[in-house]
Amino acid sequence: MTAIRVVAFGGGHGLSASLRALRHSARDLDLDITAIVTVGDDGGSSGRLRVERDALLPPGDLRQALAALADDHPTHRLTASLMQHRFAAMSMAMPEPATGRGPRIERRADRSQDTLAGHAVGNLLLLGLIEMLGDPVAALDHAAEMVGARGRVLPMARHAVGIEADVVAADGGRVTISGQHSVAVADGRVASLRLVPADPPVCPEAVEAVRAADWLIFGPGSWYTSVLPHLLVPELAAAIVASPARRLVTLNLSPDRETAGLSTADHLAALHWYLPQLRVDTVLADAKWVGEPEPVRAAAQALGAELVLVPVAVADGSPRHDPESLGAALVPVLGATR
Amino acid sequence: MTAIRVVAFGGGHGLSASLRALRHSARDLDLDITAIVTVGDDGGSSGRLRVERDALLPPGDLRQALAALADDHPTHRLTASLMQHRFAAMSMAMPEPATGRGPRIERRADRSQDTLAGHAVGNLLLLGLIEMLGDPVAALDHAAEMVGARGRVLPMARHAVGIEADVVAADGGRVTISGQHSVAVADGRVASLRLVPADPPVCPEAVEAVRAADWLIFGPGSWYTSVLPHLLVPELAAAIVASPARRLVTLNLSPDRETAGLSTADHLAALHWYLPQLRVDTVLADAKWVGEPEPVRAAAQALGAELVLVPVAVADGSPRHDPESLGAALVPVLGATR
Repeated sequence: MTAIRVVAFGGGHGLSASLRALRHSARDLDLDITAIVTVGDDGGSSGRLRVERDALLPPGDLRQALAALADDHPTHRLTASLMQHRFAAMSMAMPEPATGRGPRIERRADRSQDTLAGHAVGNLLLLGLIEMLGDPVAALDHAAEMVGARGRVLPMARHAVGIEADVVAADGGRVTISGQHSVAVADGRVASLRLVPADPPVCPEAVEAVRAADWLIFGPGSWYTSVLPHLLVPELAAAIVASPARRLVTLNLSPDRETAGLSTADHLAALHWYLPQLRVDTVLADAKWVGEPEPVRAAAQALGAELVLVPVAVADGSPRHDPESLGAALVPVLGATR
Repeated sequence: MTAIRVVAFGGGHGLSASLRALRHSARDLDLDITAIVTVGDDGGSSGRLRVERDALLPPGDLRQALAALADDHPTHRLTASLMQHRFAAMSMAMPEPATGRGPRIERRADRSQDTLAGHAVGNLLLLGLIEMLGDPVAALDHAAEMVGARGRVLPMARHAVGIEADVVAADGGRVTISGQHSVAVADGRVASLRLVPADPPVCPEAVEAVRAADWLIFGPGSWYTSVLPHLLVPELAAAIVASPARRLVTLNLSPDRETAGLSTADHLAALHWYLPQLRVDTVLADAKWVGEPEPVRAAAQALGAELVLVPVAVADGSPRHDPESLGAALVPVLGATR
């Protein structure tokens, strides 16, 4: 029996949660996992690398997906931890070493030159691999081998993209916000989301994975900046619509800043708004966090989907998916294809 | 039959040549290889990391030793190449992308902020590992696993050291030169070499490797800045003198800048000068490059050693060791212990 081919779309922490859940599901199911990752990040370490190095791809979300897929071998787990490790800021007033540390080299530069601080080691590693190999997919495949990834990580486009949104403030004023980070933290309602350029070069390997998939999984994650952007890449959207795969949407547990004011049902409506031809088979939500289920059920039905309510949140009451619970919930859904 | 335990001392390209040769020897002999690496580098990428990050150890020579020991598995070789890859300098006048590249993020910083240029990826990786794990030996052992190293890489001291030399110029004037890089490129004859501090904290694992060794190998390499420093670490020197191991010196093919004016025999005399109790069993030199062999033979005999003349240089006539030839030459020497 061949593996169930699963493609998970997203970026950042939401995609990590989805991938960690799939790694749990893979204990019971033979899964072939591909992550397709947004490439709009312009904040933090990735943003600095776009500015300073003109990075072909912002590496942060790709790195997080790789770390989530790392296998359990201690060497691979430690390499994954290294990739996630961020260089600490050097203290401007570092104490002198106790003894025996030897002479500091004469300081030719002050600590304001501490330009590594905040960079994740894996971001620099991916940047170096892409520079050395020239091909981002070859670079990601090698980084995946370095952590024994139980799946493949691909970018949604071959180059970094810009994310831009028209946002309506509480007073009705409308402003255009540029940049993923700015959109994610903007106050107001996102009225229109777009990529810049509108037609970025798609990653052929990602299109191929979508074509060959048994399941496409959207979410959880920052809806406007991590989940919806994939639907805005024309060639990728066309492949999604044309794919014979079944489609699953994993809903967020609570709104975040960019979706403040959006109901859970609105999240599903946004999928339809940005890709009207998208049909969905299953919508997965947490029974406790979903609130009144009927509007969500209706919104799911409008996409052609059945709403499945399961406990998938962590036990401490915070709005985060528990990878083990989500993984267990995915098993009967993904396994039902056979 | 247990493996022959070989400890190779050095730094930089010379140690790499020695380790690559030992990997060739290991086709015919069961070798357990440990590299003990100088930690005085203050030039280039390592020097910048000492200044900007107060790096516990300069990673460059350690990284080169790891790359030299990488096994032949394609994944490990590619990881080793990545470690050796240096970030290119961003051109200040980079051409705009042909098409479809999308908007550059607004440049908040100009290209003078291109602070990654020139850093080897492996230097940053080692820096991150040491910061994350706290323990340089654990960090080096993990980096060794990442490249499938056929041996262990250890620092000669647990912290970076300074290298300082009194240098006598052609006119007889004497100046003190501070820093490994400055000593390596100084004009004049090195009259006195020392570490700062004079008694750096030794790496216990390195002492243990010396104690347990069957062979200790010194050179090839920059004599003052890569080969002799080990003899100046008091606890390491004591372990070398006390070790039951046999000792091999692999001579350089030609003088470099720091040893300009030094004869081949003088190189051997310098070993005696800095560690008078050092006895040597075998001195390996290239028959073609050694010149008149008698003074070298006499200097070897003064250390208790037999001079072995073999062809170990590359075929193109440049003064570099050929790893395969050197490896073949080492087989009968190292194998004779049994």
